[in-house]
Amino acid sequence: MLNRIVRQTHNLMNKQKKTIAVAESCTGGQLCGLLTSLPGASEYFLLGVVTYSNRSKEIILGVPEKIIAKYGVVSSPVALLMAENVRKKIRADLGLSITGIAGPAKAPSDKSVGTVYIGLAANHKNLYRKFNFTGNRQSIRKKAVQEALRLLCAHLSR
Amino acid sequence: MLNRIVRQTHNLMNKQKKTIAVAESCTGGQLCGLLTSLPGASEYFLLGVVTYSNRSKEIILGVPEKIIAKYGVVSSPVALLMAENVRKKIRADLGLSITGIAGPAKAPSDKSVGTVYIGLAANHKNLYRKFNFTGNRQSIRKKAVQEALRLLCAHLSR
Repeated sequence: MLNRIVRQTHNLMNKQKKTIAVAESCTGGQLCGLLTSLPGASEYFLLGVVTYSNRSKEIILGVPEKIIAKYGVVSSPVALLMAENVRKKIRADLGLSITGIAGPAKAPSDKSVGTVYIGLAANHKNLYRKFNFTGNRQSIRKKAVQEALRLLCAHLSR
Repeated sequence: MLNRIVRQTHNLMNKQKKTIAVAESCTGGQLCGLLTSLPGASEYFLLGVVTYSNRSKEIILGVPEKIIAKYGVVSSPVALLMAENVRKKIRADLGLSITGIAGPAKAPSDKSVGTVYIGLAANHKNLYRKFNFTGNRQSIRKKAVQEALRLLCAHLSR
């Protein structure tokens, strides 16, 4: 299932000659790992950042501390800023982001384990999706990566 | 095998209360993915960057184009700069880097597929290791990640 969507993404990215940059939090690099798994990924994959700490989101992606304090680090404004800013950072066509709580420990916020926001930034269109996944840490991370690839494929298939 | 070394790294990082930042190229985020796979990784994992393109190595990590042109992107100077600069970027105790050729296509350089440099930057000590891995793309990426974790564990176990 995951392999199929990775291959589909690969084909769409190649066909459309688009470039992409990725910003991940709770998935810790797994989205980047899959997006670069097939030979020739360097044609479209420009940059990935695993901004695990709040400070790294601020230093690397310019997500203001005030926004994190106001909305929480697992929120749509942060997902959108991560996607948009990583895209701008390397001047990619697309930016894709994941911020969420993989658990098992609850994050210090009002969000529950399994809450994940996925952001997609394109030239004139930014969007996000919110998910409430169930399962253990590994399973939540896997589902988040899968939905991020699905969102990307849906955008490329329009 | 990989699970065992991930657990060992996790225990050593926790015990020594060290923080780490990672810069990957050919492994595309897989090292970050493993370093963040166990609950509590946020205690030590501050930042990961997947600088897949030369431009991203320059923009994000400040690896000068001149150094890449002189030594090649798969080289000890680039591995060392990646490790040192990602460490400084987020003020981590340790920086760990991988740059190599996972193939199957040969990179435009004099290095062959399977050539991988791993860099480790600590406060007063920077070192690197060179490897010539065999196998397919997936296997080379896996071996590179494994050796990076081994190098980190060896450093923490001194």
